[in-house]
Amino acid sequence: MTASTPQRGEMRYEGKAKRVYATPEPGEYIVEYKDEATAFNAQKRGGWQGKGATNNAITAHLYPVLEAAGVPTHFVRKLSDTEQLVKAVTIVPVEVIVRNVAAGSFSKRLGIEEGTPLDHPIVEYCYKSDALGDPLINTDTALSLGWATEPQLLRIRELALKIRGVLVPYFLARGVKLIDFKLEFGTLPDGTVVLADEISPDTCRFWDAETNEKMDKDRFRRDLGGIEDAYAEMLRRVTAPAAEGRDPRAES
Amino acid sequence: MTASTPQRGEMRYEGKAKRVYATPEPGEYIVEYKDEATAFNAQKRGGWQGKGATNNAITAHLYPVLEAAGVPTHFVRKLSDTEQLVKAVTIVPVEVIVRNVAAGSFSKRLGIEEGTPLDHPIVEYCYKSDALGDPLINTDTALSLGWATEPQLLRIRELALKIRGVLVPYFLARGVKLIDFKLEFGTLPDGTVVLADEISPDTCRFWDAETNEKMDKDRFRRDLGGIEDAYAEMLRRVTAPAAEGRDPRAES
Ligand SMILES: Nc1ncnc2c1ncn2[C@@H]1O[C@H](COP(=O)(O)OP(=O)(O)O)[C@@H](O)[C@H]1O
Ligand SMILES: Nc1ncnc2c1ncn2[C@@H]1O[C@H](COP(=O)(O)OP(=O)(O)O)[C@@H](O)[C@H]1O
Ligand SMILES: [Mg+2]
Ligand SMILES: [Mg+2]
Repeated sequence: MTASTPQRGEMRYEGKAKRVYATPEPGEYIVEYKDEATAFNAQKRGGWQGKGATNNAITAHLYPVLEAAGVPTHFVRKLSDTEQLVKAVTIVPVEVIVRNVAAGSFSKRLGIEEGTPLDHPIVEYCYKSDALGDPLINTDTALSLGWATEPQLLRIRELALKIRGVLVPYFLARGVKLIDFKLEFGTLPDGTVVLADEISPDTCRFWDAETNEKMDKDRFRRDLGGIEDAYAEMLRRVTAPAAEGRDPRAES
Repeated sequence: MTASTPQRGEMRYEGKAKRVYATPEPGEYIVEYKDEATAFNAQKRGGWQGKGATNNAITAHLYPVLEAAGVPTHFVRKLSDTEQLVKAVTIVPVEVIVRNVAAGSFSKRLGIEEGTPLDHPIVEYCYKSDALGDPLINTDTALSLGWATEPQLLRIRELALKIRGVLVPYFLARGVKLIDFKLEFGTLPDGTVVLADEISPDTCRFWDAETNEKMDKDRFRRDLGGIEDAYAEMLRRVTAPAAEGRDPRAES
């Protein structure tokens, strides 16, 4: 693998927030982060200039942190403001949500007040299908309908909890509570399960550790304003060193 | 425990399909089966004379079959056409759905055609809450919100699959495909997890093995007509001996 910038080939996939391009290397894709924001399965649309660059930078900063902690990922390297090089994977069509504190759809569905800490982390699985609105499933369903194998599901759960164990103290040391986050996994040609897609304010709930102010896509979903500033502040915190005096193990 | 009919004490609970009464024995309740039918969280209402007696008779026939196969249940004995004596339990507020074939809410949620056989049985969990419409959850959620302990959840899953292993061949030997079924479990004062509530055409999907005709509450939910006859026919089949020539292991 050379460190020169590979050429973009044909677009393989355009999603709500990113475009995926082939490269001359069959095992690698270029992911381009767009400036669009969508919510509620794309019924609500918005965005701003620089959003793609912010999410690209946050993801590109966090993936090496996870790799260093032993989490295999699709990430190769950042290519430009809005692009990164990744390993091409077959995405497992099961989105994984890890919850530390009740919020969002979970709070609504179960009548648990947003902000209620959870005694144990909750790992939820959804079928990745825009047409069906990413419905909640469980591992029996994923297995029975052939969306993942049993070893893959066990590995995905193990990695999801490991990622939580890395990210919760990482963010806390930077003044941010990680409320919940959504992950996607994929498989390499040799079958290895790796973390794919992004980790950004689009896919996590971040609350300021002191004020509980929301610093993520809920500002867009709920029309709270100040979304550009919140994303920019999250990029600053993610790339900042751990604050002294904060015990990163406090909420792990 | 005497074989005389215990006196009904005060009503402890009135649900959509049954009433639960205290008895002079603190560890025992009388369950009375009502003639009412409800669907879609009681938004649709109906019923007919004799429904309670039919569901009482079906449940009272099946519970000893399960006990004989090693499944502990709350069932003590049938008292009258519409009443049975049961052990008082603390109901675990987690409804358990076991699916053999895609149908109902599962088919709708996941876009899987009703009638599609499932490669592996699927065990789903819902939070028992009329106010919230019995939302789908998973075992992490039940654990984290304190609705059940980890050993209880493991035992409940084990029992649910064991019950499936008994009921699928039992029904098949009587010309009925068990598509899916809903179970409730409770705990005795000593902590033992036992099967509680009913097993009836209200809580199972039964399809005729030859014609796939529905013989359960879907006739009411979907206004298919002939519901009284279907329930009566199910009672006849449940209480009939296994048909000769049918291999009860064929679909187990
Ligand atoms: N390494 C990868 N290989 C192949 N596909 C990937 C990889 N990483 C992410 N993807 C997929 O690319 C798409 C990214 O675009 P995005 O706009 O987030 O899509 P979506 O609208 O599905 O959320 C997603 O469908 C994601 O699953
Ligand atoms: N052995 C038992 N001890 C205590 N409660 C029970 C027992 N068996 C069933 N129940 C509860 O009694 C109620 C039965 O009434 P039903 O009309 O089915 O109620 P629902 O409207 O909740 O479905 C249910 O809530 C069920 O959980
Ligand atoms: Mg996406
Ligand atoms: Mg009931």
